[in-house]
Amino acid sequence: MRKTRLELARIQASRQAIDPLFLDSPLYPCVGLGADLGCAVSLKIETVNPVRSFKARGTEIIASLLAASGQNAVVCASAGNLGQALAWSGRGRGLDVTVVASRSAPAVKLERIRALGAGLVLVDGDYDMACERAAAISRERGIRRVEDSVDVETCDGAATIGLELAAAAGQLDVVLVALGTGALASGVGYAVKSLAPEVEVICVQPQGAPAMTRSWHARRVITTDSTDTIADGVAGRVPNPDALADLLVVADDAVLVAEASIIEGMRLLRDHAGLVVEPSAALGVAAVLEDRDRFAGKRVATVVCGSNVDMDAYHRWVGTAGTLVAPADGRGTRGR
Amino acid sequence: MRKTRLELARIQASRQAIDPLFLDSPLYPCVGLGADLGCAVSLKIETVNPVRSFKARGTEIIASLLAASGQNAVVCASAGNLGQALAWSGRGRGLDVTVVASRSAPAVKLERIRALGAGLVLVDGDYDMACERAAAISRERGIRRVEDSVDVETCDGAATIGLELAAAAGQLDVVLVALGTGALASGVGYAVKSLAPEVEVICVQPQGAPAMTRSWHARRVITTDSTDTIADGVAGRVPNPDALADLLVVADDAVLVAEASIIEGMRLLRDHAGLVVEPSAALGVAAVLEDRDRFAGKRVATVVCGSNVDMDAYHRWVGTAGTLVAPADGRGTRGR
Repeated sequence: MRKTRLELARIQASRQAIDPLFLDSPLYPCVGLGADLGCAVSLKIETVNPVRSFKARGTEIIASLLAASGQNAVVCASAGNLGQALAWSGRGRGLDVTVVASRSAPAVKLERIRALGAGLVLVDGDYDMACERAAAISRERGIRRVEDSVDVETCDGAATIGLELAAAAGQLDVVLVALGTGALASGVGYAVKSLAPEVEVICVQPQGAPAMTRSWHARRVITTDSTDTIADGVAGRVPNPDALADLLVVADDAVLVAEASIIEGMRLLRDHAGLVVEPSAALGVAAVLEDRDRFAGKRVATVVCGSNVDMDAYHRWVGTAGTLVAPADGRGTRGR
Repeated sequence: MRKTRLELARIQASRQAIDPLFLDSPLYPCVGLGADLGCAVSLKIETVNPVRSFKARGTEIIASLLAASGQNAVVCASAGNLGQALAWSGRGRGLDVTVVASRSAPAVKLERIRALGAGLVLVDGDYDMACERAAAISRERGIRRVEDSVDVETCDGAATIGLELAAAAGQLDVVLVALGTGALASGVGYAVKSLAPEVEVICVQPQGAPAMTRSWHARRVITTDSTDTIADGVAGRVPNPDALADLLVVADDAVLVAEASIIEGMRLLRDHAGLVVEPSAALGVAAVLEDRDRFAGKRVATVVCGSNVDMDAYHRWVGTAGTLVAPADGRGTRGR
């Protein structure tokens, strides 16, 4: 494998810095979902922990390093989940945490950041605007700024998920992973390709926020002017060149999916696994829905990466009808 | 502790028979739920596995024993979850599994039993009627009948949850556990009281299916003529005397809760943890809702024991409004 910013030994060692609450998350076959999708589906569940997303794996590493070096404050921009995770990890280590987020981020994410004791700064604009403000606060106050996918620890944290997936590689053909800034995808991808190169790593992004996917295919950074997707957790416009460089090494493909497929993926995860997830967490299922032939009969794992979603929005998107079921007579019926 | 049918060394050894898929389930603090309930709440999640309930811990032990002794068929009565679990455990070990259930059991539970390859026999009547039919099939075919709470392996399986809770006992004051036949409650209770006697074990049952709770308080078997609860997983009329005897040793209390509290508990688990659960899994939260003073400021763990629920029924019960939130101005509003 060509060189990336990631290193296997460092990732393996980083597990020591992460509270076991966030490690060794469930990975199991979801039989009903697989039957619906025409392949064997395993779910890697990153939502049953105190911050309801995978992000704490990275913030645990960062907060440990900061506390060990005697620092007492930190700032990050966040689409919502990184902020919660940094608030959790910082609180446990006596760090003063400031989170910058878009005023339009899901209310539930903003509430939970506040509930975990972080200072919350809201900007009129999107995630990339929040990044600019976080950079300014970092300069003014002389404190460390955590940047998703730019700080390699955020990739290392995600890569510990990849270690756990690689341990089950004998039962897997494909890993599907959400693509936003690239931290999750490059981390998971690096660990999987390092330990189980035969397993295919496919990144999935919404059509409405395609900057990183377009960049991956063009092999150079391509930015977009705006985003238009319900998957707020992966809605960036400005890919980081280092994250792209890593992703070019570790990903086998990057695909885009429609909003309707994301919503159907959320519904399937609710009905087959009892999980209310945020849109980003359904990207993997959406990818299978859009290209069933590609995955037919394969053993597919997807990372269910977060469940911080406003319930009103969730119900507006997913509704209350059950998953389409095909009974023996062949007529599809919604709801049982 | 007075003698029970359970033995610590046997329970510890039984972990070896259980697929790791079902062991070491997540246990984590749910901060938002705790804030709502006025105590520190940890969730023990038994729903993120292939059968979406804790029951496979017991059926793994039983199916291993049957396969080792050369048997090739087994029958059980089930409210729905035991049948799924036995179907899963039997399938992996070449056992022909027959499940007897009430025709009025949740359709989704019956479908999943069939999907896992078990033979399904439906009876016109309730769980206790299904038990009678399973006994008849066992006699006619000369095959082993698995009885929840009567077969001590079902208690041993549940007790492995108790081992995992006891390992966190330093952070716990109370364990809340659903009470039906008594297998879950006596198993969890035995392991917790054996290893961490200072932790209080409280069983929770619906007011509409109170037979075991009444029996526990009367210290003798009390049956009821009928049940009236949405919590189908714990709706028995005829307590087993051996299960009661064990429960009298290991439980500190047994309480009854109203249907409205169960529904509010389901809503809180959805909104704070992103989990769609079946009614039985919300009994612990319901118990706190009904007696906040008792639990105020305590460190409470509750076993989220199953998520096999018909989505239509779920939405009819829980609705789509969000959890009641008290904003700064003191007015409560539903939905954010």
